[in-house]
Amino acid sequence: MLKKIDRRSFVRNLSMGAAAATMLENPARLFASGNRKQVRMGIIGVGARGQFHVSELMRRGDVEIIAIADPDPSSIAKALALTREKGIKDPVLFTKGDEDFMNLLKRDDIDAVVIASPWEWHVPQSIEAMKVGKAVGVEVCGGINLQDSWDLVDSFEKTGTPIMILENVCYRRDIMAILNMVQKGRFGEILHLQGGYQHDLRPQSFNTAATCCDGVDFGPGAVGNAKWRTEHFVKRNGDLYPTHGFGPLALMVDINRGNRLTTLSSIACKSRGLNRYIAHQPKGGPDHPNAKRRFALGDIVTTQMQTANGETIVLTHDTTSPRPYNLGFRVQGTNGLWQDQHEGEPEQGRIYFEDKSPEHSWESPVAYLEEYDHPLWKTMGKDAEGSGHGGMDFFSEKAFVEGVRDKKPFPLDVYDLATWYAITPLSENSIAQGGAMVEVPDFTRGKWKERVSFREIL
Amino acid sequence: MLKKIDRRSFVRNLSMGAAAATMLENPARLFASGNRKQVRMGIIGVGARGQFHVSELMRRGDVEIIAIADPDPSSIAKALALTREKGIKDPVLFTKGDEDFMNLLKRDDIDAVVIASPWEWHVPQSIEAMKVGKAVGVEVCGGINLQDSWDLVDSFEKTGTPIMILENVCYRRDIMAILNMVQKGRFGEILHLQGGYQHDLRPQSFNTAATCCDGVDFGPGAVGNAKWRTEHFVKRNGDLYPTHGFGPLALMVDINRGNRLTTLSSIACKSRGLNRYIAHQPKGGPDHPNAKRRFALGDIVTTQMQTANGETIVLTHDTTSPRPYNLGFRVQGTNGLWQDQHEGEPEQGRIYFEDKSPEHSWESPVAYLEEYDHPLWKTMGKDAEGSGHGGMDFFSEKAFVEGVRDKKPFPLDVYDLATWYAITPLSENSIAQGGAMVEVPDFTRGKWKERVSFREIL
Repeated sequence: MLKKIDRRSFVRNLSMGAAAATMLENPARLFASGNRKQVRMGIIGVGARGQFHVSELMRRGDVEIIAIADPDPSSIAKALALTREKGIKDPVLFTKGDEDFMNLLKRDDIDAVVIASPWEWHVPQSIEAMKVGKAVGVEVCGGINLQDSWDLVDSFEKTGTPIMILENVCYRRDIMAILNMVQKGRFGEILHLQGGYQHDLRPQSFNTAATCCDGVDFGPGAVGNAKWRTEHFVKRNGDLYPTHGFGPLALMVDINRGNRLTTLSSIACKSRGLNRYIAHQPKGGPDHPNAKRRFALGDIVTTQMQTANGETIVLTHDTTSPRPYNLGFRVQGTNGLWQDQHEGEPEQGRIYFEDKSPEHSWESPVAYLEEYDHPLWKTMGKDAEGSGHGGMDFFSEKAFVEGVRDKKPFPLDVYDLATWYAITPLSENSIAQGGAMVEVPDFTRGKWKERVSFREIL
Repeated sequence: MLKKIDRRSFVRNLSMGAAAATMLENPARLFASGNRKQVRMGIIGVGARGQFHVSELMRRGDVEIIAIADPDPSSIAKALALTREKGIKDPVLFTKGDEDFMNLLKRDDIDAVVIASPWEWHVPQSIEAMKVGKAVGVEVCGGINLQDSWDLVDSFEKTGTPIMILENVCYRRDIMAILNMVQKGRFGEILHLQGGYQHDLRPQSFNTAATCCDGVDFGPGAVGNAKWRTEHFVKRNGDLYPTHGFGPLALMVDINRGNRLTTLSSIACKSRGLNRYIAHQPKGGPDHPNAKRRFALGDIVTTQMQTANGETIVLTHDTTSPRPYNLGFRVQGTNGLWQDQHEGEPEQGRIYFEDKSPEHSWESPVAYLEEYDHPLWKTMGKDAEGSGHGGMDFFSEKAFVEGVRDKKPFPLDVYDLATWYAITPLSENSIAQGGAMVEVPDFTRGKWKERVSFREIL
């Protein structure tokens, strides 16, 4: 066993690339905090999601929020209200326009940054942070273009600065129990996976700053998602938000770690939901300009993917239709399958194992989810109580902060980030070609064959 | 209103093609039974499914089973046992090899045939029957090749002999209620559909004639599906059985009737289920030759399709993995969606309507399925009791027999048959090209634009 572990450690170092290996030998080069057990954090973007991060990070005892950057005064005010409520020292503020985050990055009293800005800022801000050696925790979205993913990889390989995608659904309690079952072979060999982002975003896609939530406008005069996200629906047709669905599945079949995505093709149905929503709103109506506006995004986008190891994956993006929230996971192997039906409540799913269940009959997953509760949740579920999104934010924040604090590799790294982000521009490309199959680049440049399994990490 | 109906009748005649129009003017040319209200039937293929037909047809008062063709003596014996049990006159038997059905077709006391033979015989037998003017009810499967579909269309257009695909799932009670809701606009405009054939067929894929159901062999020495169907799993990788999933969805979005399938792409995961099954069987084991035999069929085949009217459709073929039966329907429109979870029991699904349900919360479909129970079921549900597959066989048989008896068009016609069958060779073609998108031919040669909606038919 020792021999095996040694080989794995060796491979793990190898797989991080030359720059990263140097960084491990000389961590002080990277982490200004040296041996201090406190992580000094900057937060870039404190809209709705960024405010979550402010709250989560303040719950921890090992994080100091040094500075915040956001060009929007109302977001800054809300974030400051949170820090003041907690009674901590006011963070330094960088509010002078979109580029002021660069001044935050210049500070030498910051070890790491959390990036929760609008989507189009994720990659440029991540790259600037990596350049100056600030470890990056970047929020989820899809890449704006394919080059984004290559730029992230190149930047990491050049600077050695680690970056983690803050994909909280990977840490959902039922998902982690299922991951545990997958890793223990409970499902047999994995064959087929499904997931997606099925969440009616129409109510948050339209508002006005003045009246907030019952408006029917979007763009600069609106607030929150309606201010910037809805514009993506106008211009883009693809799976715009792939990682909540894909991330958990990528862990189960070790994408970039002995396996990789090879092909993808996407189709989109017609676009009706946003127009119809405006037409039915009290402040809208069928004659409102936004009821007739052309939105590029098809209401349901389906993406089918193949992997090097022969699994198939189907992702669904469904955010502009009336529907209950459900990420629609399905995890299927040679010994059975699990289907998720709601928001993570164990009793809502269905499970079947050939070697355990009554013949060809579904069982409730409750007992299995309890039996295979992931060690992280088993030992720290109490600490996660009250944390965002049913506790899963606690664990993604923990992985990021402790990676920085203890100078250990993040469980989700730049190759995961690059691949997961790439699904968006690749799906747009496929749809633009009428649903053609496109190749998924190998962002590890061959290292996926040797990189250690998530079994060793999560 | 009258004007509208007149136009529709006119279009309906037009849409059947010139040969069919001639046939309508001179029905005696086609139906040997003339004005008799009794349909004289031949049955080609009396394996498990053909025996169902024998029983179903005998339940009716308007069918005389004149003759049966099948080269397999044990199937013939079982069919004869059924007719004798019912006390009807022995049908004339055609048992002298695979081609003896040609002699059944020569008889001038037969109006119509039901074809329930192994898949590879469906098309040649259908075409021979059409040539001699016997109306055809052909069982479901997927085409062996794309030319099959063109041959069926050409044969129909040349002979004017009507042919119906006996797709019983189109008549499942919950499916018909959902169809009724779709047609009444309950879901709003339809956006996205899912369905499939998810049925663990492994136990019936292997046996030996001697010991029946616990064998691990297939091919000529086996019985039932194992005798011929399993061989398709050896050689073919695609959605081999698309119509149970696709047929009901085609009706909902009027495929070939104002709409048509335009593109399709399929992917298949690795093939593991059949080998693993043999390895785990008492008479098999890991060293049994069939545990190592290469099966071409991927365990889960996913097919995504686009339509001329902008809906997307996802089909799943999942027949060689351990799993509970579930066709996995999802019907989604601008006002909500339904998801099917089991075998048609209403309480097993979930439904959501924006204009009725509690906000973003699933409801049980029971009350809706009752409210929208299809008129066919409402008026004849009692008659269907005890009929095959929960009563749905009653309705598909009824549509076929009454079409012949009353000389009215079948609800499902040659263009439906050709398109539905074509999914199989197209999906094989797509998979053989690594998942490439392929175009779906227009088997109506442009007539889809004018053909009347299923709203007028079903």
